[in-house]
Amino acid sequence: MRIFGRNFIKLKLTQYNDPIYGFIAIPTPLIGKLVNHPFVQRLRRIKQMGLSFLVFPSAEHTRFQHALGAMHLATKTVQALRQQQIEISDTEAEALYVCMLLHDLGHGPFSHALEHVLFPKNTHEDMSIALMKKLNVEFDGKLDLAIEMFTNTYSRIFFNQLIASHIDLDRLDYLKRDSFYSGVTEGNINSERLISMMMVQDNRLVFNTKAVYSIEKFLLARRMMYWSVYLHKTSFVAEELLVRFFKRALALIQSGKEVIVSSSLAYFLHHIDGAIDKKIDSFVRLDDADVWMMLKSACTNDDVVLSTLAKMLLDRKLPKIKLAYEPFSENQIKERQLAISSKYGLSKAEATYFVFSESLEIQGYIQKGNPIQLCNQNGECSLFDTSPDTIHVHSLTKKDTKYFLAYPKGDGYFS
Amino acid sequence: MRIFGRNFIKLKLTQYNDPIYGFIAIPTPLIGKLVNHPFVQRLRRIKQMGLSFLVFPSAEHTRFQHALGAMHLATKTVQALRQQQIEISDTEAEALYVCMLLHDLGHGPFSHALEHVLFPKNTHEDMSIALMKKLNVEFDGKLDLAIEMFTNTYSRIFFNQLIASHIDLDRLDYLKRDSFYSGVTEGNINSERLISMMMVQDNRLVFNTKAVYSIEKFLLARRMMYWSVYLHKTSFVAEELLVRFFKRALALIQSGKEVIVSSSLAYFLHHIDGAIDKKIDSFVRLDDADVWMMLKSACTNDDVVLSTLAKMLLDRKLPKIKLAYEPFSENQIKERQLAISSKYGLSKAEATYFVFSESLEIQGYIQKGNPIQLCNQNGECSLFDTSPDTIHVHSLTKKDTKYFLAYPKGDGYFS
Amino acid sequence: MRIFGRNFIKLKLTQYNDPIYGFIAIPTPLIGKLVNHPFVQRLRRIKQMGLSFLVFPSAEHTRFQHALGAMHLATKTVQALRQQQIEISDTEAEALYVCMLLHDLGHGPFSHALEHVLFPKNTHEDMSIALMKKLNVEFDGKLDLAIEMFTNTYSRIFFNQLIASHIDLDRLDYLKRDSFYSGVTEGNINSERLISMMMVQDNRLVFNTKAVYSIEKFLLARRMMYWSVYLHKTSFVAEELLVRFFKRALALIQSGKEVIVSSSLAYFLHHIDGAIDKKIDSFVRLDDADVWMMLKSACTNDDVVLSTLAKMLLDRKLPKIKLAYEPFSENQIKERQLAISSKYGLSKAEATYFVFSESLEIQGYIQKGNPIQLCNQNGECSLFDTSPDTIHVHSLTKKDTKYFLAYPKGDGYFS
Amino acid sequence: MRIFGRNFIKLKLTQYNDPIYGFIAIPTPLIGKLVNHPFVQRLRRIKQMGLSFLVFPSAEHTRFQHALGAMHLATKTVQALRQQQIEISDTEAEALYVCMLLHDLGHGPFSHALEHVLFPKNTHEDMSIALMKKLNVEFDGKLDLAIEMFTNTYSRIFFNQLIASHIDLDRLDYLKRDSFYSGVTEGNINSERLISMMMVQDNRLVFNTKAVYSIEKFLLARRMMYWSVYLHKTSFVAEELLVRFFKRALALIQSGKEVIVSSSLAYFLHHIDGAIDKKIDSFVRLDDADVWMMLKSACTNDDVVLSTLAKMLLDRKLPKIKLAYEPFSENQIKERQLAISSKYGLSKAEATYFVFSESLEIQGYIQKGNPIQLCNQNGECSLFDTSPDTIHVHSLTKKDTKYFLAYPKGDGYFS
Repeated sequence: MRIFGRNFIKLKLTQYNDPIYGFIAIPTPLIGKLVNHPFVQRLRRIKQMGLSFLVFPSAEHTRFQHALGAMHLATKTVQALRQQQIEISDTEAEALYVCMLLHDLGHGPFSHALEHVLFPKNTHEDMSIALMKKLNVEFDGKLDLAIEMFTNTYSRIFFNQLIASHIDLDRLDYLKRDSFYSGVTEGNINSERLISMMMVQDNRLVFNTKAVYSIEKFLLARRMMYWSVYLHKTSFVAEELLVRFFKRALALIQSGKEVIVSSSLAYFLHHIDGAIDKKIDSFVRLDDADVWMMLKSACTNDDVVLSTLAKMLLDRKLPKIKLAYEPFSENQIKERQLAISSKYGLSKAEATYFVFSESLEIQGYIQKGNPIQLCNQNGECSLFDTSPDTIHVHSLTKKDTKYFLAYPKGDGYFS
Repeated sequence: MRIFGRNFIKLKLTQYNDPIYGFIAIPTPLIGKLVNHPFVQRLRRIKQMGLSFLVFPSAEHTRFQHALGAMHLATKTVQALRQQQIEISDTEAEALYVCMLLHDLGHGPFSHALEHVLFPKNTHEDMSIALMKKLNVEFDGKLDLAIEMFTNTYSRIFFNQLIASHIDLDRLDYLKRDSFYSGVTEGNINSERLISMMMVQDNRLVFNTKAVYSIEKFLLARRMMYWSVYLHKTSFVAEELLVRFFKRALALIQSGKEVIVSSSLAYFLHHIDGAIDKKIDSFVRLDDADVWMMLKSACTNDDVVLSTLAKMLLDRKLPKIKLAYEPFSENQIKERQLAISSKYGLSKAEATYFVFSESLEIQGYIQKGNPIQLCNQNGECSLFDTSPDTIHVHSLTKKDTKYFLAYPKGDGYFS
Repeated sequence: MRIFGRNFIKLKLTQYNDPIYGFIAIPTPLIGKLVNHPFVQRLRRIKQMGLSFLVFPSAEHTRFQHALGAMHLATKTVQALRQQQIEISDTEAEALYVCMLLHDLGHGPFSHALEHVLFPKNTHEDMSIALMKKLNVEFDGKLDLAIEMFTNTYSRIFFNQLIASHIDLDRLDYLKRDSFYSGVTEGNINSERLISMMMVQDNRLVFNTKAVYSIEKFLLARRMMYWSVYLHKTSFVAEELLVRFFKRALALIQSGKEVIVSSSLAYFLHHIDGAIDKKIDSFVRLDDADVWMMLKSACTNDDVVLSTLAKMLLDRKLPKIKLAYEPFSENQIKERQLAISSKYGLSKAEATYFVFSESLEIQGYIQKGNPIQLCNQNGECSLFDTSPDTIHVHSLTKKDTKYFLAYPKGDGYFS
Repeated sequence: MRIFGRNFIKLKLTQYNDPIYGFIAIPTPLIGKLVNHPFVQRLRRIKQMGLSFLVFPSAEHTRFQHALGAMHLATKTVQALRQQQIEISDTEAEALYVCMLLHDLGHGPFSHALEHVLFPKNTHEDMSIALMKKLNVEFDGKLDLAIEMFTNTYSRIFFNQLIASHIDLDRLDYLKRDSFYSGVTEGNINSERLISMMMVQDNRLVFNTKAVYSIEKFLLARRMMYWSVYLHKTSFVAEELLVRFFKRALALIQSGKEVIVSSSLAYFLHHIDGAIDKKIDSFVRLDDADVWMMLKSACTNDDVVLSTLAKMLLDRKLPKIKLAYEPFSENQIKERQLAISSKYGLSKAEATYFVFSESLEIQGYIQKGNPIQLCNQNGECSLFDTSPDTIHVHSLTKKDTKYFLAYPKGDGYFS
């Protein structure tokens, strides 16, 4: 008779502390190796929420934390689905973990602001795929299935739905995490409950009918997070300033002026139209520090537009912002631009860097494409937005738009 | 080829919300049936912390919640040990769940105060075993293995250690739960981390060497909970009053006076020396409500000692309490007793119901018997208290004793 | 020169631990005395959420905790308003604290179910006022102003609005507390933020315009709590069973049958039509224990309807419940009643105790009466529900109704 | 008669969300201006816990958050002391807030590692004072009293004790905050309770006798945080690597080799012995980004020692670490150094950058100097460590020392 436990097994379990989930365990050796790869370690140096920390001082968490968190939710999801008698092989499970760990690999620093500067013809998803393929070579094809799932070419499409759909593991982690760190409790969704109500039918992700209130709550929380945090006027305008800072830097470089940048950033600024594959080597060396150092160096640049934008961001001297439910008229904008032109001796073109108007908009749940399905325990399904229990669908699907006008307040901007 | 997930499986998963663990899932149908049994449902009507709510107003949680919580930790432990390649059969796992769910079945209302009144010759563990055996008959022997584990007659003794040892699942739940509900954060132990560091060697429960600080923290937290909560002078004295209330009621009954009690309580008061088996039927009908109604009825009893004790407890008119590090002298106690005797016209014997002195004592970790073992990944083990890392062992093993003297403060007790 | 702090001041500050707010301090000696009064201590023996614990095992918190919590929020509100330069005298502040501490004094055990049995012609607010007046005599008129505020006869009506309006301190505490203890996180409102956004204009309570999302979130959370918790079909039906249990007991008593009840409960069952003033003395001796003991005694009552209802509640053998968005037809109900009549030998009338249908309904925010006002820092105000930012008003004001049909499932009810 | 609240007051209250305290309000306009000053905004770009994030991925919080948090605790302390009838003028209160907001102004990036490189002859406190004096000029002397308190020249010395003593507001915030973000719950102290037990006697800070367990818990938690977090071998060794990286860079610079650094860092590396006053201008432009960019540039430096150290830190390829309770012998260290010298062709001197041994030590509470005093409500005081209730003093005052030996594990370091 075999005596249990006599042969002591050496098993090194790596766990990360996480204020949200308590612990995050590394489920397989491959995941452990990927976490330690420089591509993933680099995510430690990229803030998840860009410039939001200017409004929410605690929103300093990194894309690395989110990557681990999304991977952790994947392990919970596999457990939950297997308990529901959905067969998921260990290979499939690991491929899902890989996807969640790597899904944001293509994000550069201050992604929402700078994506258009870094690769104007591509998206960060393209870069994520490019990097996953590069890793796949390094790891001898072990990421094949993960890449299939990520690019939605795998037959069991619920895996792709877990990666990218209305209620995917990405959102289940980032809404909770961003809510936690920003301190905006309105966004605190119940990821665990939603996962426990996931089911698979005909290889598609569906939810238990009982989940209807939880799904509503999730969609509402997401909407609240957009209005309260992601589209917060102050951090949104700060990101617009950063876009303008880069636009100005590019103009200066193209006209032969000197702008101090790191070698990695320089590559992008000199190869705006370059192919994504050629940009990979510079991309993986890029992180938030490149942008901060560029801003700090720019403070002493001869160009007053560039140096002023840099100081506004570094010292948090942000513009005044007016909100309205109708677009601002050309005249209103021009008037403000003229005022600062004459006050500070800027040209009309230069004034547009400091006085500008944009829209903030959000459309919640759109049922087309990949609608949320509810199924009861007899396998009878219906669309979420036609359920008699979805009392808030009207407002969840409504598109909301606001407009802002940003302009310098008081003095102290141009020295 | 079987297409996964096509056949939708009806699986009803019951989950309980729990503010501490989020959700508690019922792992097997047998556990579900046991939870719904009147013996377990009765635990909903017994407060976990007796009269502690008089000091900590939120400590209203029940033994039912603790039973579910301890059972939940058992499911986490089985998961953790299996991840460490310890083989645990499904039968063994369920037996452990049963043990944790039922381990406190033998607790009556205000157990620490009334155990000696209800069955002076037995312990609540004896009653737990008696009830488990009764359930085992009802459930056709399905609790056989659980009873073996509970009574430590099963060969793999780590199961019994998980039920009753220095760091068992009972303590891992109740320390955390009592800390949470009392609001005494000092007791908030990290159950999850301790469970993740459990290992099994030669069928004994041991801990990963890395756990040394966590174990220290656990033992310290337990000590803190004793001094701050379990031995809090005010609730401790309130329980002593309850003991005296029952002592007086018994004396009155034995001398033929009328005391209104429920039929279940009456059985115990008339069969103090009865065998535990005969008491089962009355026991399972007994809960906190019997005691509260007895106290409320006693408020109008002719006996001034009984009615005063009842009102003190109901209206929270508790005695004044002096603490000291040396026992109070006979003289000090007598003096106080004489004072109230003359003031309120009580006999000397009657005064002892209101003026009394006892000791509060705690001895933390005692290494003899079932010492905590630490083992590294090579299987080399050592005793916890000899580890060079256990910096607080000296104070953890020290016995602390305090003494109190309780006596009525001011007026308003005797009307 | 006076040397600060030399004269050491004896100041005894009483603090209660509270898992939600950390600490609750007793702000004035009068509040301290009221907390210790038997009327308030009695609230420790009445669960805040009645039978909800049958669904949410942790919902065991008491009305005493809620009373302290609402009083605590009153101290925070006074602080916040004073910071906004609203003058509030110490007398006014204390009167508000008194109101919040005592506002639920008129709740009996399982109030929502039993209010109609205990005083069918009055509300629990009437009883609260009656008890406050009785206390006012005992405290020599010190509650005069509190009673004015509570009955809305005080000139500064924002005090009454803090006691009873759409966003009052009662709701700000109980939504948060019930959410916390039930574990239904959807109801976790941000009381602190809402209080920080309260303002007073022309002696009316208004909110800072910025509060619009927080108010929406509050109203949504309240709606979620209704659907998920307060109107949860299982606990709602359990309360209906309790109502029927009392109805049956009353019928038995009126026909001269014996039903064992406590003397306090007996008074109510024999004086259904009595005046509220005459009921006070029995009322203050009544708590949850009277009801539990009555249920336990009823298990052996000769009447099978009464004993079955009692056992269903005690052992949590609850009926099966069907939900629908249309009322159930008379036929559907009769059919079920007939089925159990013939199965268990019940009369038609008796069958109605076990098979019944009711509606569950909620109407969220109703703007008439006491609408929520938003004011900006220039003192310009508008109604909450006309703000362009209130995206969810449509669904918040919608009335939702569901219907249920309850009937025994399987066997084991009638023995 | 004045009608309350009629005149609507414009009062702009700034609040910051904080996951730990909920909200942090800016108490006075001066504090608002200081928060917005570039010196304080710069703290947003300096991580509170340096390289600890390499072990605790969530420990990304900044010195800015801690500065706000410590200032927030100061407002709570002033409230608590005033409730105890300790007179504190508004001027004194604001000065204390200023001190807590600015107390860490003199921290540069990765302070514990780089303080000796940036100003080897001074401490960060010296730099904090220098910056406060500079701000005082800018703010026309409004920081006079704050500087007095900070430098302990103000007569009411309890203010200085709140700034720097065994239980000061700095520690009360950072222990709680670092515990929260690292996820090491053992350090979660109850700041609120400790503040509520502070008293002032003869202008010295003392604690209520009842605080004895809370103080023990605080000192134990601090000790736990040292062993578990601040002296965690992995992050400690990473900081040692950073020290060695700078040492190497300095050596290269002094021998005329090129090392790419920002202009701010360059100033320090070229003026190691410079006076602190001359360093201010460079200091306030320095933050974590300068160090990261230097590390990233160094990856391609010709010097293999410098480039290897940089890559080890960036890619988290950290050395293997052995722990012992006795110092490692010279031989043990030399042997390891020789091994890598021969393996990678490094000189003996170069090998010392990769193989090194140091000690980790902690001494808990030292009673001399500024001992913790406990006073009862009659003003009778005693020393904390002589209280019969301080059961853990023995271990709290014990000095603990461990030794580590760090050396490269496996390959992949030198390419």
